[in-house]
Parts: sequence; C-alpha cells; structure tokens
Amino acid sequence: MSQQLAVGIDIGGTNTVFGIVDRRGNILCDGKMSTKAHEEVTTYLSELHGHLSKLIDQVGGPANIKGIGVGAPNGNYYSGNIEYAPNLRWKGIIPLASMLQGLFNIPTHLTNDANAAAVGEMTYGAARGMKDFIMITLGTGVGSGIVANGQLIYGHDGFAGELGHVIVIPGGRLHPGTGAKGSLESYASATGVTNTAIEFLHNRPETESLLRNYPENEISSKVIFEAAQKGDPLAREVYAYTGKVLGEALANFVMFSSPEAIILFGGLTKAGDLIMKPVREHMEKNLLPIFQNKVKLLFSELKESDAAILGASALAWEMKD
Amino acid sequence: MSQQLAVGIDIGGTNTVFGIVDRRGNILCDGKMSTKAHEEVTTYLSELHGHLSKLIDQVGGPANIKGIGVGAPNGNYYSGNIEYAPNLRWKGIIPLASMLQGLFNIPTHLTNDANAAAVGEMTYGAARGMKDFIMITLGTGVGSGIVANGQLIYGHDGFAGELGHVIVIPGGRLHPGTGAKGSLESYASATGVTNTAIEFLHNRPETESLLRNYPENEISSKVIFEAAQKGDPLAREVYAYTGKVLGEALANFVMFSSPEAIILFGGLTKAGDLIMKPVREHMEKNLLPIFQNKVKLLFSELKESDAAILGASALAWEMKD
Repeated sequence: MSQQLAVGIDIGGTNTVFGIVDRRGNILCDGKMSTKAHEEVTTYLSELHGHLSKLIDQVGGPANIKGIGVGAPNGNYYSGNIEYAPNLRWKGIIPLASMLQGLFNIPTHLTNDANAAAVGEMTYGAARGMKDFIMITLGTGVGSGIVANGQLIYGHDGFAGELGHVIVIPGGRLHPGTGAKGSLESYASATGVTNTAIEFLHNRPETESLLRNYPENEISSKVIFEAAQKGDPLAREVYAYTGKVLGEALANFVMFSSPEAIILFGGLTKAGDLIMKPVREHMEKNLLPIFQNKVKLLFSELKESDAAILGASALAWEMKD
Repeated sequence: MSQQLAVGIDIGGTNTVFGIVDRRGNILCDGKMSTKAHEEVTTYLSELHGHLSKLIDQVGGPANIKGIGVGAPNGNYYSGNIEYAPNLRWKGIIPLASMLQGLFNIPTHLTNDANAAAVGEMTYGAARGMKDFIMITLGTGVGSGIVANGQLIYGHDGFAGELGHVIVIPGGRLHPGTGAKGSLESYASATGVTNTAIEFLHNRPETESLLRNYPENEISSKVIFEAAQKGDPLAREVYAYTGKVLGEALANFVMFSSPEAIILFGGLTKAGDLIMKPVREHMEKNLLPIFQNKVKLLFSELKESDAAILGASALAWEMKD
C-alpha cells in the first residue's frame, strides 16, 4: 500500500495551497499559507516544509508518497524551474523542483498552473480517458494546457501552451502586461470582460444599462454578470462579444490539434449559456467542415476550490517509477 | 537485409508519383502516372499496382519492403481513408490504405501530404533529431504538419494540423474554396500572393510597377517574383505584406506548441529574404518574451522533386514491426 498518495502544491502570487491526494482524487488533508509574505524563496520553502512534513506524517510518512507535483507561474516542466515569473517576488530563475526534492527526498515535478489543470482534468475530471484535448482556464488571465497523443505538449523548451497570448485581433486591444495588441487574454479574461463593458458604455452613450449606476472603477466581471442575469442588454452584449472572440480563437486551436474536447475552467464559465452559446456558434462557424460538430465543449469537473491541488498532485502519477 | 526499403506514394489531384526509398532517403527507383485520368479509384489502383509491382521486383521483391506510405489530400492517418477530397475525382470516403494493403499484402499507412512532408523532414531532412517542430508547406495552398514529443499530432480524428485554414485576419479576404474570411491560405499561398498584388495594383493607382505591363489574368506568383528580383517596389511590398501575415501566424503557432524550429517548404520560399526577413521580424514581434529569439526558421532540406515520395515513404519507418 505504499506510494499510493501524491502531494499537490499550487503556488499563486498571493497564496500557496497544498494537499495530499489519493489516486481517485480525494484530498486527504490540505493547508494554505502566504506566498507573498516571503521576500526570499528560502524562508518560503522553510515554512512550506514545516506544514507539509506534518501532513505527510499524518498519512503515514514519506514512504506512502509517490511524488510531489507543483503548479507555479512560469513553471518549466523540463528544468523544474520557475523562470522570471512576473507576479512572484522571487526574481530570475528559481530551481524550485530540485529545492523541494532536496528538502523532502521525494521525486518532484513542476509545471505551470494551466498545464497542471489539464493533467488534473485528465486524471480525475472531465478528460478522463481522452488522448487529445485542450484545457482553457478563464480567470484573471487566460491559461491553457494542451494534450495530444495522451501527453501534455511542453514544446522544446517547456513553455508550450500559452494560448492566452495568441493574437486574435491583429492590432487590437493593448495588453498592459505584455505589450501585445489583440491577444486572447485582453478579451476573454475577467479584466478583458470589464474592459469590454467600459468600452461599450463609452461607445454607446444612448444605450441604457444597469452598469451606468456604477462608477467606472467599480465595474467588474461580477457586476457585469449580475446585470446580465437581470437581463441588462448591454451586459449581455458584453458576453456575446466575449463569446465571439473566444469562439473564433477556439476554432483556430481546433484546426491546430483537432481535440476531442475543449475543457473550460474558471470564473467566466459561470456565465453559462450567456457566453457558451456565442462561443459554440462562432467556433463552429470558423471551422472547416471536416471539424464541425465534432468537438465537445465541456466544463471542468473538478471543484474550483480543489482544482489547484488536484491538478498539481496529478503530475506525480505521471512520473515513471 | 530484408525489410530495409519503403515505398512512398504521393497522390496529387493531377499526377501520382511513387518510388522505393532506403533508410537514408535515397530513391532507388521511381515513377509517375496520371491521377485525374481515372474516373474510378479501382482502375487507378490497377494501374498503380502494375507500375509498383515492377519496381518492387527490381529491388528484390516484397520481402525487402517494410511498408508502404501514402500522402494524399484529406488523408486520415487513423482510418487510412481519403475523406471527401475536393480536388480528386473519387467522391466520398475511399479506404485507400486497406485497398493498397490488400493488393500488395504489405502494411500501408496514409496521411495528408503536409503531414507526410513533416515525417519526411524528421526522417531525412532539416528536422532530423528534433522532437518538436512545425512543417509549413507554402504552395498552391498552405499545409502543415505538427510534431510534438517526437510524434506527429493527428488529433482525435486524424485531421489535426490544418494551419492553412486558421483565421489570421478576422473578416479578411474570402477563401473561395472554404468560404472562410481571412484564413492564412488566402494570403500565404501562390494564389494569395497573386491576389495581394492585384489588390495593391488597384488600391495604389499612382504607384508605378512592372506588374502593370501584364493583363490581370497573367499576374502570377512567378511574375511577381521576377518583378521583385528586378527591384520593383510594389512587388517587394507584396512580399513584405505576405511575410507580415505569415510571421504573425507563425507567432501564434509558436505559442501553441513551442517548437524548436519551423520548417518551410514550397514555392514561396524561393523569394528568400524578400519574404523571410518580414516573416522573422513579425514573428518575433508577436511572441511573448519567453519565446523570442529561440525558434529556428529553416527551409526544407529535401529536393523539391523528391520530397513528396520521401515524405510518404517515411511513414513506413514509423510503423511498429
């Protein structure tokens, strides 16, 4: 019965969550700590080591742990490094996987959070049994993980699958973080939806909208969603437009890797049909006939609060013994 | 010494070429026949069987042949079928691989011509030793083959890698064959280059150009290339524009699969720096910093006259014994 558990660690800019998971995706125990309180990665790792050692003892010690999986911003699967992550305080290249492996003496793999989400979905969620699918995370940003031939695509350098940064409208909206114009993330993220609403409010002064009751800096994806649910036409058009841009992007992705399914995860999916109807419509419209009416559009089957730990933990099952 | 040769067959809309190839990519013997003369696939296969049987006898008989590889329009690797190929006379679904395997009693695999080109480049050409690269064929149309983790990406249905049909300019130029607006093939193919030149001639009546000496229906990619070589500014701008569109598309592809190299093949590459300089410039400009200055842009290393046979034959080496 040894080696039947995996540790999952998800490093976010603000907090880190971690837990111990069995092969069926049950989280046996978990915890949380601040990432951003630590100016140095060394003190961060000391605290994490303390928390996790206790959890590992609770489940019977390191002999029961097959591996540690880590999801981290700009995480490179091949090197196990975090490389120049803009939203972490630790600058440059951090050899995080080998540092953790040194502390725990347990095999450790690391990748970015969207890739971890894809492996999690393949192991425990909506993509079980699939060999070809694309995971898209629609949150503050837009992330992605691509699986083909049953394997995650890491590319030659470990950084494949940055579909949020694909240009969907050449010369379009400026992305303040990257300087790119017209990238998917500028439209299909929480910030993108907010910016679309603000643009619509400016450009259509004659259109009444519940959103006009808010000062501009209080307009958020949450406020837009609530207005849309109440039937506000401008808010609904924001989703229609976002869905069009996302659907066109998905069509291009399908013609790249011809996945069995595209699995969507994150805040934007809560808008349900408001966004999914235009997504499907514009995806199908932009596909070559041989690809039409074949690709499943699915939502993640992992509980949002568990997904980060599960995704990271799933990396451990992929390790060769 | 048995099983050390492969048969390659490339089925084009007009002609079919075929040959017998050794592991180093030497074509030992080859031949050519009409595709379009055959209204029925059965008479086509009879003729092909006759030609190929003689060649196989020349190299010592079927015992020396490891397999047959076929490149064909709309060729599906999984099923071995040609499915609804618009430029062939045989309609519907043609189980070509199993028909050939029945005739020769030799294992047969089939895929589309651009995928075959990618396998050919990996086996004998510029992508030897690479595990992650993208092949783009720039001819009458734009085709592609994508290799990740050392394997061709076929997708869940065998049709992955239709990058010519990715939309690069939403709402852009109409593709008469597919009805899509703004697909890469509408710009980066021989027809695309010709249409760009005609547009430029119309929209810039004040610009002098050698191309004005031709009636519109005689303007071709060849004529444009010759004018550009003579320094004609309008013709050179055609390449600059085509290179920009192609470079932006390649950036998106890089952010998908992060290849070590992109390998270009076909007529358009003969324009050399005229097109490659803008391709590289706009590709790099549209990449996230983590991808910049990493991706090699290479030309195919296979002789154009041999590439189709070599690519198809390479499928045979991929077969499991």
